[in-house]
Amino acid sequence: MDKPSLPSGTRDFAPAVMARRRFITGTIEGIYRLHGFAQLETPAMENLSVLLGKYGDEGDKLVFRILNSGDFLSDVPEQHRAAPEAKSLLPYVAAKGLRYDLTVPFARFVAMNRHLLHFPFRRYQIQPVWRADRPQKGRYREFWQCDADVIGTRSLMAEADLLLIMHEAFTALGLPDYRIRVSNRLILEAIAEHAGRPELFRAMVVAIDKWDKIGADGVKRELATAGFTEEESTRVLDCMQQNSIDAASLDELGQKLAAYPKALQGLDALRTILGSGIKANLILDTALARGLDYYTGCIFEAEIPDSGFGSVSSGGRYDDLTGVFGVKDLSGVGISFGIDRLYDVLEARAAFPAGLDMSTELLLCPMDDSCMNQCFNMAMELRRLGVSAEVYPDAAKLRKQLDHANQRNIPYAIIVGSEEMNSGIFPLKHLSKGSQEMLSLQDLYSRFRS
Amino acid sequence: MDKPSLPSGTRDFAPAVMARRRFITGTIEGIYRLHGFAQLETPAMENLSVLLGKYGDEGDKLVFRILNSGDFLSDVPEQHRAAPEAKSLLPYVAAKGLRYDLTVPFARFVAMNRHLLHFPFRRYQIQPVWRADRPQKGRYREFWQCDADVIGTRSLMAEADLLLIMHEAFTALGLPDYRIRVSNRLILEAIAEHAGRPELFRAMVVAIDKWDKIGADGVKRELATAGFTEEESTRVLDCMQQNSIDAASLDELGQKLAAYPKALQGLDALRTILGSGIKANLILDTALARGLDYYTGCIFEAEIPDSGFGSVSSGGRYDDLTGVFGVKDLSGVGISFGIDRLYDVLEARAAFPAGLDMSTELLLCPMDDSCMNQCFNMAMELRRLGVSAEVYPDAAKLRKQLDHANQRNIPYAIIVGSEEMNSGIFPLKHLSKGSQEMLSLQDLYSRFRS
Repeated sequence: MDKPSLPSGTRDFAPAVMARRRFITGTIEGIYRLHGFAQLETPAMENLSVLLGKYGDEGDKLVFRILNSGDFLSDVPEQHRAAPEAKSLLPYVAAKGLRYDLTVPFARFVAMNRHLLHFPFRRYQIQPVWRADRPQKGRYREFWQCDADVIGTRSLMAEADLLLIMHEAFTALGLPDYRIRVSNRLILEAIAEHAGRPELFRAMVVAIDKWDKIGADGVKRELATAGFTEEESTRVLDCMQQNSIDAASLDELGQKLAAYPKALQGLDALRTILGSGIKANLILDTALARGLDYYTGCIFEAEIPDSGFGSVSSGGRYDDLTGVFGVKDLSGVGISFGIDRLYDVLEARAAFPAGLDMSTELLLCPMDDSCMNQCFNMAMELRRLGVSAEVYPDAAKLRKQLDHANQRNIPYAIIVGSEEMNSGIFPLKHLSKGSQEMLSLQDLYSRFRS
Repeated sequence: MDKPSLPSGTRDFAPAVMARRRFITGTIEGIYRLHGFAQLETPAMENLSVLLGKYGDEGDKLVFRILNSGDFLSDVPEQHRAAPEAKSLLPYVAAKGLRYDLTVPFARFVAMNRHLLHFPFRRYQIQPVWRADRPQKGRYREFWQCDADVIGTRSLMAEADLLLIMHEAFTALGLPDYRIRVSNRLILEAIAEHAGRPELFRAMVVAIDKWDKIGADGVKRELATAGFTEEESTRVLDCMQQNSIDAASLDELGQKLAAYPKALQGLDALRTILGSGIKANLILDTALARGLDYYTGCIFEAEIPDSGFGSVSSGGRYDDLTGVFGVKDLSGVGISFGIDRLYDVLEARAAFPAGLDMSTELLLCPMDDSCMNQCFNMAMELRRLGVSAEVYPDAAKLRKQLDHANQRNIPYAIIVGSEEMNSGIFPLKHLSKGSQEMLSLQDLYSRFRS
């Protein structure tokens, strides 16, 4: 018999890992809910007509496709059957694929249900996504996204709300040194105009996006290759700014780009967000350039300094989420947390709170079969008090039962034997301390009530 | 542009539905956790070598297969390429499939991790599964299972614990009239011996399993077709019993089957479970016969009378969960709740608690842009008190903001204008009652603190 195995790039989440993952998702979800976001879930499978063409050619290749059921060749035209090739068969053998992100299914949902929704519509969604990427450290074929979007309003207060959520989430996760880099697509467009090469906007963005990796000289070389003259690229680099965002830094950039209304509009958006009074560790970073095919206004990207990991959360405003599904003019803004990346950061810092993986608080240890009834009754009462309690299922030797409690990180054990049942006094063992106290049932219950 | 659509048999869960689904899963999960079960999650994709051959030929056909990435024909042998047929290509074009249930992935997990686990191991798992079944009312291609298993003990106290969980879950869900039918495979084997046709055990089980649908006469006809004589089938029918389980009913059956040690062993198992003192609406039903390829001891099946739906939860003991993955002699017992079926039952009875879909408790209504700061600050303070609070993102007309609150079922709104900010007194509207009171910030916060 072959040893069973997991598909590469996928993982089991055993209880201890699961408890830590839930600390992350539960923390973020709790904050989303306090901010009035409502939960949506969409199916793992989507029609390929919904998925394809939304993520670029590379993305399309990474969509997992589900083989049609039954005779999956039945739709293949005759001319492709004689000398079958994967490429020519592909459009006919699979009509469904696995969710690649949460954004496209959300857009599809909004387009299909727009008459039932009340805008601004605030939804969150925490589900796995699948990509046929080459698995490597920190990159999985099944991983979790954790999105919140406000759709149907152009108000910048939606941006402010989402940045506040980022602040609250990182603080609650024990990562208060997070930084959120912010910018606005309009500022980038103005910089291209300022350099005199608006037609090279896209190439410029690709170059400055590498700022962190290749530095100013590297970006300059890339710009030259893209067709920028020395003087033009100097004008681009002159606008690169990475500093904490405040009235002064926004004014400084505003002076450089004063001739371009777009820039002033982009900077005003950032000023308005700051004016909401939200607290958050914001950095103005004009080299930030994420997903510009998609975002049209403010953009954000959060990272944990010195963690060795890149972005742990990101987002921005988009003006045409649902246009591709036939619904125009729905502006929205969204953020996403990468659960798997956050897990890795918290683990690398040993920053998970203690005690997360305790599944049982108290083990009831029956000393003989006649004590089972008593154990069940005590367990029921303890659960009514909210205590997670488990009855050891056999009247095994006490040492074996206590070993089990220790291995499972169960902090308390109560010994229930005939003697204890007669006296009405039960030994409560604190396994972590190695101590023990003798309690009546009443004392036991009041101990755990508090 | 084509209208976007969902793959047949799959569903979006919009916020109101999601809230109801979470009522079900959250209730059951809370009970699992209080009983000391720890959470496991496994990947959506499994290798087909793990999935196939575990669910019978019909099951194998219903597994969704994932097309291999890239050149999916590369492994197809030359002789199958000339005149390609789905059946001959199938083994070569897909190596992975979607999870079909939670049991086989759990068995795989236990087999792969047995040296890390402490037995008895108590795990729960709540995840979707996928089956390429023909969609119909109440049957979906993506649906949720909600399993708990205790593995690594033969103690019948594990059965008692799981039956107690069923009782607690149905009670908490507002379905206290549930019934759990119980039996034991050994009793069924003894009945076949009692009829003198142990070699027709399987056919007998298939026949009596239809008891509910075709009645005694129907079962008799089926038994005749299977080869039972009139006298033999009378002996089978004589042992059919459906009544509340107690010492008397067990003794009655025990007398009929006194000659068969297996029967006495099966009945003793039921007596031991009853002896644990657990409370649950149990029915002894000798016509119960679920998944006998799999279960080896006690079997359970729960239903809600007069609901028009069948089984909403089921389970039993198995002695060879992991044998197929090379790990022998791990006995276990498990139950599963069908979330989608429970949803349908609760909806048909209009038995969901009120207020589940309230995502925001309080809307802050800014009367002009200069009030946004104040709204954000008040919202932050209210969230600190655990109140889900949302700021309307524009200084729109009050009527529009209150309409939004009404449509979203937000019960409270606070009006924040310059006048209110000057006076320090804010109108709190109770939208459901149509009433309003004037509160200082301090009074507002203490109102929501309680």
